[in-house]
Amino acid sequence: MSNPSAAMLVIGDEILSGRTQDTNTNHLAVSLTNAAIDLKEVRVVSDDQAQIVAAVNELRARWDNVFTSGGIGPTHDDITADAMAVAFGVGISVRDDARAILQTRSDMLGIELNEARLRMARIPDGAVLIDNPVSGAPGFSIENVHVMAGVPAIFKAMVATVLPTLTGGMPVISKTVRLDMPEGEIAAPLGELAKRFSEVSMGSYPFVLAGRFGTNIVLRSSDTDLLAAAFDAFIVLFPNGQPQ
Amino acid sequence: MSNPSAAMLVIGDEILSGRTQDTNTNHLAVSLTNAAIDLKEVRVVSDDQAQIVAAVNELRARWDNVFTSGGIGPTHDDITADAMAVAFGVGISVRDDARAILQTRSDMLGIELNEARLRMARIPDGAVLIDNPVSGAPGFSIENVHVMAGVPAIFKAMVATVLPTLTGGMPVISKTVRLDMPEGEIAAPLGELAKRFSEVSMGSYPFVLAGRFGTNIVLRSSDTDLLAAAFDAFIVLFPNGQPQ
Repeated sequence: MSNPSAAMLVIGDEILSGRTQDTNTNHLAVSLTNAAIDLKEVRVVSDDQAQIVAAVNELRARWDNVFTSGGIGPTHDDITADAMAVAFGVGISVRDDARAILQTRSDMLGIELNEARLRMARIPDGAVLIDNPVSGAPGFSIENVHVMAGVPAIFKAMVATVLPTLTGGMPVISKTVRLDMPEGEIAAPLGELAKRFSEVSMGSYPFVLAGRFGTNIVLRSSDTDLLAAAFDAFIVLFPNGQPQ
Repeated sequence: MSNPSAAMLVIGDEILSGRTQDTNTNHLAVSLTNAAIDLKEVRVVSDDQAQIVAAVNELRARWDNVFTSGGIGPTHDDITADAMAVAFGVGISVRDDARAILQTRSDMLGIELNEARLRMARIPDGAVLIDNPVSGAPGFSIENVHVMAGVPAIFKAMVATVLPTLTGGMPVISKTVRLDMPEGEIAAPLGELAKRFSEVSMGSYPFVLAGRFGTNIVLRSSDTDLLAAAFDAFIVLFPNGQPQ
């Protein structure tokens, strides 16, 4: 049985302009891999309603789960919540439970829950709130789409909340071996090995380290015994391989 | 008049599994912003032909330029070149000019141009090669799609080659000089030279050849006379430089 699938939708001009290096995708990717959910596609789109709506509708139809990051703050260009309402064809308004969270937070900080902040309580009808232990303003899940903040600390906290609620398949285990050889030397014997162990995926990741070519080989399987057998066969082929 | 648009297509299971943090997108985003080209969309897809073909066909129809990274190495999972041929409906085969580049490189390194390495000379019909000063194996441009390597050092070198041709300015000419010296020996005098010739870009691409450190220097300019003057000054500084 194959694992459940997922997609990531990053919303934000600051990623596309190069001003900000996106790290949320990598965090999500690692978390999903550990949860035996396969991340199959990532998209980054700008703060543009039509682009967001089109992307989320394609992704939620194609994959089991969709995670979004960005665009749920208090400023005029934070349009993700409204775009989600359009994508799902539902209404959106300030919701009492979300407002209560923001009010509690504002009281605690001694600040005013002004109109800008109140925008963060606008939640599409039928959505379930995602707790934000960092700064209060909640994310939300609507059907299979999980809408989260772009600030990495908040994004991480929201992923930690949402992930355990999703069903994973069999966890995948991996073994990484470093070879101080260029990929071209490895390709042919690795291809042979991949044929022998068709249920062990074998990824080959070249790198240049201090001017030297090397390759990391990652063996992955959900079957521990098969992984061990493939690893042993690999080391016979490449005795100089350094397990990482 | 609005800026030309662009999309990035990252191809690679290693990004989706979280094993590798993609940095090529951010490099491209910054480079495009500096060149007044607007990056409008990014997609990451797995090493799957149907997914690559669908994504590149959507992106090349929608945006002025498409850049891809990953999947053009020698191993069985490097399927980007074949996927591009399918996307464009053209043939693909080992091309003489690409094979000659790999043969020269292999001879230089004293290694065999084996079947795995020869896969890297498979180029879709009608494509234009993109120089790879780091490890030889070329990328290629086909119509508005620029297919580049995933290894960041090579990706950067290829972006530096392709980008000036897109800005509507004068075509860029380049001269490559090989130095059998580590990059650290070259950095200071090269920096001085770069100041003297501010309109000639000077890229430095380290490599290891038979255990010794070397560096390819690529001088790029749209001004032939200025490029020649910079080249002459370079050779005065580095009389052992071997033009490539």
